[in-house]
Amino acid sequence: MRVARFTVGAAPKYGVIAEGTDHIEGLKGDPLFQGVEPTGEVFKLDEVRLLSPVIPRSKVVAVAKNYHAHASEMGGEVPNHPNIFFKPNTAVIGPDDPIVLPPWSEEIHYEAELAVVIRTLCRNVPAEDAKDYIFGYTVANDVSARDAQRNDGQWARAKGFDTSCPLGPWMTVDPELDIDNLEIRTEVNGKVVQQGNTRDMVFDVPFLIEYISSAMTLLPGDVILTGTPAGVGPIEAGDRVECSVEGIGALGNHVVRR
Amino acid sequence: MRVARFTVGAAPKYGVIAEGTDHIEGLKGDPLFQGVEPTGEVFKLDEVRLLSPVIPRSKVVAVAKNYHAHASEMGGEVPNHPNIFFKPNTAVIGPDDPIVLPPWSEEIHYEAELAVVIRTLCRNVPAEDAKDYIFGYTVANDVSARDAQRNDGQWARAKGFDTSCPLGPWMTVDPELDIDNLEIRTEVNGKVVQQGNTRDMVFDVPFLIEYISSAMTLLPGDVILTGTPAGVGPIEAGDRVECSVEGIGALGNHVVRR
Repeated sequence: MRVARFTVGAAPKYGVIAEGTDHIEGLKGDPLFQGVEPTGEVFKLDEVRLLSPVIPRSKVVAVAKNYHAHASEMGGEVPNHPNIFFKPNTAVIGPDDPIVLPPWSEEIHYEAELAVVIRTLCRNVPAEDAKDYIFGYTVANDVSARDAQRNDGQWARAKGFDTSCPLGPWMTVDPELDIDNLEIRTEVNGKVVQQGNTRDMVFDVPFLIEYISSAMTLLPGDVILTGTPAGVGPIEAGDRVECSVEGIGALGNHVVRR
Repeated sequence: MRVARFTVGAAPKYGVIAEGTDHIEGLKGDPLFQGVEPTGEVFKLDEVRLLSPVIPRSKVVAVAKNYHAHASEMGGEVPNHPNIFFKPNTAVIGPDDPIVLPPWSEEIHYEAELAVVIRTLCRNVPAEDAKDYIFGYTVANDVSARDAQRNDGQWARAKGFDTSCPLGPWMTVDPELDIDNLEIRTEVNGKVVQQGNTRDMVFDVPFLIEYISSAMTLLPGDVILTGTPAGVGPIEAGDRVECSVEGIGALGNHVVRR
């Protein structure tokens, strides 16, 4: 099942995109809080504007250097435990929203990632139970100001600026999805620039949930970005960047400077 | 004016504590969103339980090494621009709530700080206009797991664990408050262990708001922790830690291990 958040001009709605169709069926409320209850309304997918499928009430927790080859390209080693950081909900944008380059950076990079959306409040979750707390999966672009990341020490500015967290295009809710073997890819202006597979994660999703929830309570709608594979690189004003994860979808955004 | 959030057993309410009284007058809603409208209800201060005066909808932005003497004691230099990091809203607790020591740390420190509560959505705020966007001030304890802070690289776990952000006891709303000359103090079990003054901040509050809002939108109820002076040190299970800022109040919490 694909759960989307969308607008047809007014307030955001939630909907379900039936497999193999170009239709979206409206839902009565936020499926994270009100369940998946159809209203009976049906929209054509190409007549709605998709929004970020979730706005975290609390936090986006992201994981640094969670792929060996990416840790190497960043000039570092894989840590012996996850190195986590936050992106604020004010950084979240949806599919086709512009990534706005901040004036204080000269070096903005894309980072395609598998994103996990938390279903229910949880803490101290053992890895073996972690999937019970997952609502679904989406695609993230962990947009990063590399120069600020190198200079600042902490990454709140480099990875927390407005528009630095595109999410979408929808949440895939599928307990059968084998998240340990999904191709991850980024294209810039139609050219493949990053390619990897979730099988190369250093710490897998259940372990990340155990680790993060041993420090902090996760709330429904919190999002975990699970790290990016090797192949990160720059985006510039005028580019279109598309991050995709196999079995989920493709998240495209254009890049502007204001 | 002192604006508090409190409970008398049921849902949280907001109220105003009149200067020099031990009474709290109820307000119709959240003063950040519904203004300061009294309901006519009056409670005795010692018959209510004060809560964190604000729960950030989006973020707590904190500033590292914003006092020269503290930067030295941490073995570093003052940065040439603010080094910012996030604490999540799940870390926020109120006065007299317990600070729960996480099992993965052996070295938890207090850090008393002046906290700024944002009044309205803003971005790209020039320093000279910054005070227009401030609702009020409260006291924060930026509780930090020093061992994890040293080992982790990014500080999301070390400074973002549950109960690591006590705020309170209320918000002081007073445009005349001279925030550039306020004594900051921590007592552990009644003994003064940290003492400083906001006049020794490296980057003052208006500049911090300019800097942070040049990267990210601030929302009503977002909180900025402005850094701690020198004198940080450990807290242990059984301790009572009290952080205070002159002209605002004292925020006390006990420390437990579970």
